Amino acid sequence: MHGDVSVDELRLSEELTGAGATAASADIAEYALWLGDDALILAQQLGAWISRAPELEEDVALGNIALDLLGHARSFLHYAGTYDDRSEDDLAYFRDEPEFRSAWIVEQPNGDFAQTIARQFVVSSYMFELHSALRASTDETLSAIAEKALKEVDYHRDHAVQWVLRLAGGTDESRRRMIRALGDVWPYVEELFRDEPLIDRLSDAAVRPSALRAGFDTVVDTVFAEAELTAPSVAASSAGGRRGAHATPMGHLLAEMQVLARRHPGASW
Amino acid sequence: MHGDVSVDELRLSEELTGAGATAASADIAEYALWLGDDALILAQQLGAWISRAPELEEDVALGNIALDLLGHARSFLHYAGTYDDRSEDDLAYFRDEPEFRSAWIVEQPNGDFAQTIARQFVVSSYMFELHSALRASTDETLSAIAEKALKEVDYHRDHAVQWVLRLAGGTDESRRRMIRALGDVWPYVEELFRDEPLIDRLSDAAVRPSALRAGFDTVVDTVFAEAELTAPSVAASSAGGRRGAHATPMGHLLAEMQVLARRHPGASW
Repeated sequence: MHGDVSVDELRLSEELTGAGATAASADIAEYALWLGDDALILAQQLGAWISRAPELEEDVALGNIALDLLGHARSFLHYAGTYDDRSEDDLAYFRDEPEFRSAWIVEQPNGDFAQTIARQFVVSSYMFELHSALRASTDETLSAIAEKALKEVDYHRDHAVQWVLRLAGGTDESRRRMIRALGDVWPYVEELFRDEPLIDRLSDAAVRPSALRAGFDTVVDTVFAEAELTAPSVAASSAGGRRGAHATPMGHLLAEMQVLARRHPGASW
Repeated sequence: MHGDVSVDELRLSEELTGAGATAASADIAEYALWLGDDALILAQQLGAWISRAPELEEDVALGNIALDLLGHARSFLHYAGTYDDRSEDDLAYFRDEPEFRSAWIVEQPNGDFAQTIARQFVVSSYMFELHSALRASTDETLSAIAEKALKEVDYHRDHAVQWVLRLAGGTDESRRRMIRALGDVWPYVEELFRDEPLIDRLSDAAVRPSALRAGFDTVVDTVFAEAELTAPSVAASSAGGRRGAHATPMGHLLAEMQVLARRHPGASW
């Protein structure tokens, strides 16, 4: 796609947080893929709501959240790519499914609006705890990305919480749908808090996922109490996204995301 | 969707420009639908690019443009609804195809990236002229919306122009695609500048579409000269979007946009 005309002078994007930093190690790059892929896949899913949500105001809200997450994804992927000299676009468009490190919850379908909100409630509550803790990372780039992302994720979480309360406290039908939606996503909660050998190797550069669970549970318990809901009682999925094992929907998501870039790679048109 | 929990305190949206103004007349409302529907349909089309553009940076750009246009659509639809006490959501989700007033160019398919850019180049150049002139409307609400929209559309036009130049001046393949894409959208240019009886009735409250053509042509000629392109020589389509006649893609676009709101209208869940 790169012709001779520079578009650098356009405000096509915000600055990438952490751009220009020293190159990531192999382990740091792998960890950055975990975080970047979660944000990237969720952004793609939320983008599908533009003009399709139940209210125009909500189209705008979900669209803004999608763009925030795309920004986080770009920063993490850019940093991951410093390890082996790949660009954010190389990583987004030219990796195959087993190379993606996103958790299974972000590949769960948009479903009806309640399902999107349930997924959003879980992921943004997790991300809030993650970025809060990651600010203390010994890796300066990860710390800087987390500092910036936290403010946005704070809003994402508020937005999701308000909708959980609104749907749970609305009509019988909205409450029934909210409860069903929470049950649908709950098997994928556990994966977000699972420690992997990578985490031990990274020490204080990374955040130990299991250490985030208590903060997450406190938020969930508070919201569920206010909404008069109980946590779904479901078995955890064997989800293995951090190792590149993905479920059926991921293939379709990646096909949609990658088809254009792959059909015309680099400067071929 | 409206339960008991207020989400008013959330920054779910920007203020609607012109909200709180006096009610629109029947003719003003019809005119506001012209402008609002153009923005709404184009926003929906652009939203589909999130995570699917050839570059992540471009995902962010197109996503931001989509959200800007959604904002314009909401303002115009809100104002149109003051005529007969309908909400922006009523107008977006509960009108049938013949009630939509968008021009045919915005319903043209995303196609490859060059087609999206060609459509974007035409529509944003038209919108720039439109909003520039509409600032002088004798209708204060329309004037206020135009004033705000102009700054954003100015960027949308710059963005599209830079891409036209970049694709036309890139590789043989990108140039071939850009030329083909311009040919595909050019039949729909004429409709944007066609005066309808409504315009005569509105007098200085509206902008006469035909009066915008010269400014549009100047921009197009300048860009085409720099890109060493010639204006496509194609017959104008009989497009009749301002009267509610739409082409095949519109049915699919509306189905996608309206399915959720129609399945669960109002407070039913």
